[in-house]
Amino acid sequence: MADRPTLYTCSGSRGLRATWAAEEAGAQIDLKMLPFPPRYLAPEYLKINPLGTVPLLIDGDARLTESCAIAHYLATKDGMTDLAIAPGEPDYAEYLDFTYHADATITFPQTVYMRFAIFEKDKGWAEAGQAYAKWFHKRLVKVEQRLEGRDFLCADRFTVADICVGYALILAEKVGLDEGVPEALKEYRERLTGREAYRRGVEREEAGLKALKV
Amino acid sequence: MADRPTLYTCSGSRGLRATWAAEEAGAQIDLKMLPFPPRYLAPEYLKINPLGTVPLLIDGDARLTESCAIAHYLATKDGMTDLAIAPGEPDYAEYLDFTYHADATITFPQTVYMRFAIFEKDKGWAEAGQAYAKWFHKRLVKVEQRLEGRDFLCADRFTVADICVGYALILAEKVGLDEGVPEALKEYRERLTGREAYRRGVEREEAGLKALKV
Repeated sequence: MADRPTLYTCSGSRGLRATWAAEEAGAQIDLKMLPFPPRYLAPEYLKINPLGTVPLLIDGDARLTESCAIAHYLATKDGMTDLAIAPGEPDYAEYLDFTYHADATITFPQTVYMRFAIFEKDKGWAEAGQAYAKWFHKRLVKVEQRLEGRDFLCADRFTVADICVGYALILAEKVGLDEGVPEALKEYRERLTGREAYRRGVEREEAGLKALKV
Repeated sequence: MADRPTLYTCSGSRGLRATWAAEEAGAQIDLKMLPFPPRYLAPEYLKINPLGTVPLLIDGDARLTESCAIAHYLATKDGMTDLAIAPGEPDYAEYLDFTYHADATITFPQTVYMRFAIFEKDKGWAEAGQAYAKWFHKRLVKVEQRLEGRDFLCADRFTVADICVGYALILAEKVGLDEGVPEALKEYRERLTGREAYRRGVEREEAGLKALKV
């Protein structure tokens, strides 16, 4: 059993939420980069994660596969930090809600779009993919309203909720969905990606990816 | 501002996680049933929830729209209960992971299937919907492995993680996806739906639905 958690991920995947959260929290983790998609290019990975998905965080006996759960876990496992919000604190409800909203409502339609309109576009379902691109843009309304007059989603400070939601906006730019993203959310994304810890997380993933290719 | 939270939902929707969690936690809520789909049949609802989705929990200034967040919130907002697992307790990591996994990884492919293969089947994308039915069945492997030798997902007791994951299995039966659900998960679902609090939650939704139709 390793003393510190090991994170398996692919560069720029949802695992970036975990890599980024580890940097923000100062959590020591071992980072293991995998080629994408791991289920074909690193089939031995299926032995430790039968889902074949990334990220995976192994911490002792625990195996976490949900990027938002991992981000929140890294911010709370050794005691509460300012990156999370505890029951009873102002915006506890909103913090919870946005950390779940980020993947279950905002990222998922992007993944359907990516599958049907990009990865498998020759299957003839590109239009079905576009239907989920539209769905994604409509679902941004909640984050947009919440950020009116606010720099961050909860409690006037940067939290894991911003990491979780921010990644969905980062992904949108990467996969060609930025046209329907409101200007205010692009500015919010810039605030987030301008953070030192974000840059360190990205650099760490890139260094791991380079080592993988050697 | 109401003294107790108000839950808006549609019968049998993901909001059942919230109705059920309220019963398990003994949390007093006002339940407001909406016709399905609310964005067409109750357009005034868009004023309080611009997403148009259910459930919505209003508690003071807070507005939560994620069913798993609401279930966890109801189990923790007035202090920790046995329905949730606190940082430092055994299975804290697994509890977090499964409460996020339930919607972001297990329920979402079912909703894509429902849209393309049921609600909008005349659009010619039924096969794309079936691709997500297959995806759903494959993603059950994590829950299946976890429940080997266990009655509940975490800490040898019933928790919100079971409510969150259990609802995905309840939905599978309702929408015709049960054939690919492993027998052990059907038994697990029976354990969950046999609970008094589950039945009370369902009955409360049904009574609210009847009142709506009068």
